[in-house]
Amino acid sequence: MNVTVLSGGVGGARFLRGLLGVVDAADVTIVGNVADDLQVLGLHVSPDLDSILYTLTGRSDDERGWGRADESWRALETVGELGGDDWFRLGDRDLGLHLVRTELLRAGVPLHEATLRLARALGLDARLLPATDDPVRTFLETPAGTFPFQTWFVARGHRDEVDAVHYAGAPDAAPAPGVLEAIAAAAVILVAPSNPYVSIQPILAVPGIRDALEHRAVPCVAVSPLVGGRAVKGPADRMLRRLAGGTTPAHVASCYEGIVDALVFDRADASAELPRGVRPVVTETLMTDVGAARRLAAATLDAAGAPA
Amino acid sequence: MNVTVLSGGVGGARFLRGLLGVVDAADVTIVGNVADDLQVLGLHVSPDLDSILYTLTGRSDDERGWGRADESWRALETVGELGGDDWFRLGDRDLGLHLVRTELLRAGVPLHEATLRLARALGLDARLLPATDDPVRTFLETPAGTFPFQTWFVARGHRDEVDAVHYAGAPDAAPAPGVLEAIAAAAVILVAPSNPYVSIQPILAVPGIRDALEHRAVPCVAVSPLVGGRAVKGPADRMLRRLAGGTTPAHVASCYEGIVDALVFDRADASAELPRGVRPVVTETLMTDVGAARRLAAATLDAAGAPA
Repeated sequence: MNVTVLSGGVGGARFLRGLLGVVDAADVTIVGNVADDLQVLGLHVSPDLDSILYTLTGRSDDERGWGRADESWRALETVGELGGDDWFRLGDRDLGLHLVRTELLRAGVPLHEATLRLARALGLDARLLPATDDPVRTFLETPAGTFPFQTWFVARGHRDEVDAVHYAGAPDAAPAPGVLEAIAAAAVILVAPSNPYVSIQPILAVPGIRDALEHRAVPCVAVSPLVGGRAVKGPADRMLRRLAGGTTPAHVASCYEGIVDALVFDRADASAELPRGVRPVVTETLMTDVGAARRLAAATLDAAGAPA
Repeated sequence: MNVTVLSGGVGGARFLRGLLGVVDAADVTIVGNVADDLQVLGLHVSPDLDSILYTLTGRSDDERGWGRADESWRALETVGELGGDDWFRLGDRDLGLHLVRTELLRAGVPLHEATLRLARALGLDARLLPATDDPVRTFLETPAGTFPFQTWFVARGHRDEVDAVHYAGAPDAAPAPGVLEAIAAAAVILVAPSNPYVSIQPILAVPGIRDALEHRAVPCVAVSPLVGGRAVKGPADRMLRRLAGGTTPAHVASCYEGIVDALVFDRADASAELPRGVRPVVTETLMTDVGAARRLAAATLDAAGAPA
């Protein structure tokens, strides 16, 4: 049974780890967000793809919540000592991956092919595709000005309220080879518990992807990233409050109108009426460990009428 | 008293460390070889400049003989794991410097200015100039083919005998700003105990530099890199045997004809007659520790009629 999953970084990666515990990895295609990619120190960094790569191949630091386990920071320490850009926390092991990816891209290898090679080298059995090979970049409009995603998120600690979100480059982007095919070939489509605005919408903003989902012939189920109206981590709740008017499941579902048949959300969330055509599915969504992630993935597949 | 020194990497750096023990660092200008620079993993690496930077600021690993002390190799391990280029041994701390330098160069900062900034950040008091900002690159002609310097030296472990040496790009290169001025302003000019063919000649191959030395108004003294006809490390002896016909002080001096007034060499070396105009100066040249390097530097200055 082919499963295609739209996913952002950390939360999405944990959900995917659960999913790979209940379905065959070879049947899973992940369409990853690349709109928070950045160039730093001359390197192309794809934080969401990397979170997925590291988490699904047992290399992530789950306690820190991002980056690689058993990581060190010597290169970046030196960069700082020499007056270079050290605001984006690149660990030594992590750097190795960015060096290889950047070399591939500079040699003309497209991002989806570079990602495939990295995934293969790391031993990932599922297929990981970037939403696009083209440079789509999220920009946040805030009272303090408009910022590229990582400037807002990392450098400014996402302290600025967001008035609007733009996906620069999206109109000119094309889905990466395999993305539309994976949506078309899916028996079920899932939207991981990721931030709708900065993880999922930038995937949908790539021309052709939203359309493919709107015209799907199979169930599509999203998982809310909120628990009790709150983000487990990050600014999803604050963004929903300001941009969608609230943090109930209905507000989350409003981000996915037309593309999902059901929304999975936590028992802690008030089950207000969802937008028309979106079925509520209540379960435990807090992924406290791999077992909890597995149960959430199973419940999500079940909601899609495709029990694991 | 202004001292200008032409220098390669490790041996030169150790000599320079001795020199800074006997003269004021503020009076010393180092003209460093850049013809063994390379692009690896998209980074601009200047091994000779870095050996000098690390050695003169107390950061070198003297036991290993190259690179930084307290170094680790996690980024490169990952590069290897991912199938990237890992033949050139870049440590994590070292990588930090290459990342910063490469960013500066990509932003249009010339190499001499980038080097100045790195030197300042590392606390180097002497002035370190690359021979040129332009890409001069050493190529070795060997029975197995013609190789770029680092391919021959590192990847192939300098096992191939050298039939000829070329300095690609040299005819079109210009001395870096400050180089000719430093030669003109020097009270004494020194040639460090470096490999004549791959460290010093590529400096002299930059149009204007050899000419400035030939027309010098002050003493210029070279230090032989051989002890008892043998290289302390590296292929200098094998290159001299094949390219100059032997490894005596006369053979070393033949590499510097017209530009040096004296050659400092070790007691262990036969004092055959030197080329006309080159005065022999016999002392202990093996730099077993910083004290020995200091004594060698003092003897060299003394030979130039400029006692420390």
